[in-house]
Amino acid sequence: MTDQNETGTGRFAGGAAWVRGRFVPMDEAVLPVTDWGFTRSDVVYDVVHVHDGAFFRLQDHLDRFERAMARRRLKPAEDRAAIEAILHRCVALAGLSHAYVAMACSRGRPRVAGSRRPEDCDNHLIAYAIPWIDVIPKDVQARGAHLWIAGTPRVPDASVDPTVKNYQWNDLTSGLLEAHDEGYDTAILFDRDGFLTEGPGFNVFIVSGDRVLTPDRGALQGITRKTVLELCDGLGLEGRVAPITREMLDEADEVFTTTTAGGVMPVSRVGGRILGNDRPGPVTMRLYDAYWAAHADPRYATPVLPLEATAGLEAA
Amino acid sequence: MTDQNETGTGRFAGGAAWVRGRFVPMDEAVLPVTDWGFTRSDVVYDVVHVHDGAFFRLQDHLDRFERAMARRRLKPAEDRAAIEAILHRCVALAGLSHAYVAMACSRGRPRVAGSRRPEDCDNHLIAYAIPWIDVIPKDVQARGAHLWIAGTPRVPDASVDPTVKNYQWNDLTSGLLEAHDEGYDTAILFDRDGFLTEGPGFNVFIVSGDRVLTPDRGALQGITRKTVLELCDGLGLEGRVAPITREMLDEADEVFTTTTAGGVMPVSRVGGRILGNDRPGPVTMRLYDAYWAAHADPRYATPVLPLEATAGLEAA
Ligand SMILES: Cc1ncc(COP(=O)(O)O)c(C=O)c1O
Ligand SMILES: Cc1ncc(COP(=O)(O)O)c(C=O)c1O
Repeated sequence: MTDQNETGTGRFAGGAAWVRGRFVPMDEAVLPVTDWGFTRSDVVYDVVHVHDGAFFRLQDHLDRFERAMARRRLKPAEDRAAIEAILHRCVALAGLSHAYVAMACSRGRPRVAGSRRPEDCDNHLIAYAIPWIDVIPKDVQARGAHLWIAGTPRVPDASVDPTVKNYQWNDLTSGLLEAHDEGYDTAILFDRDGFLTEGPGFNVFIVSGDRVLTPDRGALQGITRKTVLELCDGLGLEGRVAPITREMLDEADEVFTTTTAGGVMPVSRVGGRILGNDRPGPVTMRLYDAYWAAHADPRYATPVLPLEATAGLEAA
Repeated sequence: MTDQNETGTGRFAGGAAWVRGRFVPMDEAVLPVTDWGFTRSDVVYDVVHVHDGAFFRLQDHLDRFERAMARRRLKPAEDRAAIEAILHRCVALAGLSHAYVAMACSRGRPRVAGSRRPEDCDNHLIAYAIPWIDVIPKDVQARGAHLWIAGTPRVPDASVDPTVKNYQWNDLTSGLLEAHDEGYDTAILFDRDGFLTEGPGFNVFIVSGDRVLTPDRGALQGITRKTVLELCDGLGLEGRVAPITREMLDEADEVFTTTTAGGVMPVSRVGGRILGNDRPGPVTMRLYDAYWAAHADPRYATPVLPLEATAGLEAA
């Protein structure tokens, strides 16, 4: 298993996955069309990234993933230590030093034929490492993204808990389609009560003076968001989670978005409004720099283990 | 392809599927774990049943499926005539005279590596025929199902259109888990405004005198529901779509649920309340009988075509 031919340049060139207890190339990483993770979107997931050979805040992602599984009463065969080792090995097999690394736990299928009870299902873990993806393309990040304010309201927290990372993206996708129709890059959604939430794949922040605010509802507790809030302190900024109205958004000096697959992403337009000089704002760029600098911090960086360190995960 | 060994008793014994332009046995009917139909639940679907060798209201299901695809801007390679032929052939290959027949159109994956735009994806059709499934087991139907009134509110129509049949079941699954915790068979959900909607996999009706009502919001426009509403006329009942409050539910004489995978399904308990004599109600049973009798009606029944009639669907 440690043969170099098996890493990046070999069968794992496009990435490596863990499915049903085996490491497989990405084109073999598949799911039955009758799996409830698909037919009921009964699945939770997480995404962590590898930057320069090291995971960023891996333990935070594993914490969030474990919490999400518990909330949906999902329990795969693999325990936390095994999941961690599997993620390392996926990256090592794929031979990637910059990677998008996903883990998901699906409800699976009922053991009892014809059962419609979630309790009767064999939950299973899926994991994979593929080359780095930016949620917002680099050139768009450089000029600042143009955000459309979606007409579609975000699903309320009471119906689907947005802090349990899920694949139920219909409202976010509707916002994205609206944005593209209007010539915008992506969208942000308000909830039915008029509060700002998030967008398709990212949290959103507004900057007003030295206050840096992100919504208190309708949104994932992003790890990038958490990092930004923590970095504010050291930069003399006041980072806070708070309710954000349309008026506050309209009066903000700067707006930016955050996600694992992109980091701190500048915004230059929101709806009809042009922010600053139609370019990324100064507070955004300070946080952008601090965010990428934090990747060298040993408290956050976990070097990817060599293949030798994670052998023996597959059942004989 | 018309060899008898390929039907029910052979490789298609467990069912037959159409995936990526090929007919395959169910254990080969799979989806990449990076397909947006999974990772964004960006997919619509429909389910029709075959009873005694004939599809029931096949054109209504195809109409609803086409509308759902259009609403989500999904377009597979196959046109309606091809989809229809594929469904026939799946059933014939599986050799089933009673079947659960599903069709889905998934967003697929971007043609452009790294794109996050739904417009860049190759949408694809999935279809399969498997042995008949009852959403509510037959013995539970016989005594009448026990419905839990879920605390989880149904996702609002403005966020995710429930008339576009989708796999985003988290709110419904939460209701189902609540029901099982409380020792109930399944659940019905109210929306945040206090109106009755539907349950995990079925529409709901209340009967008050000769009025037979089903919710006007938060619910799929079920084909079984439509059939029941149409049958009411001939039975001297007044079938209507209307807003239904908790009070109306609490005062109903009878409650029943409807779905393709089960038909008209009696209910004997709702929350703490026992209906009638803890048994299926008389109006429910009249509709139950009328529903199954309607399966012989040539306006509704489309006999499954023999394999000879649907050859040549696969690309060479
Ligand atoms: C809906 C949504 N919100 C927010 C985020 C950002 O979270 P994180 O910073 O942990 O990647 C994501 C990431 O994928 C997301 O999908
Ligand atoms: C959420 C939901 N509501 C209602 C129904 C009933 O619709 P139909 O009678 O067309 O099967 C279904 C069927 O699967 C469903 O999933």
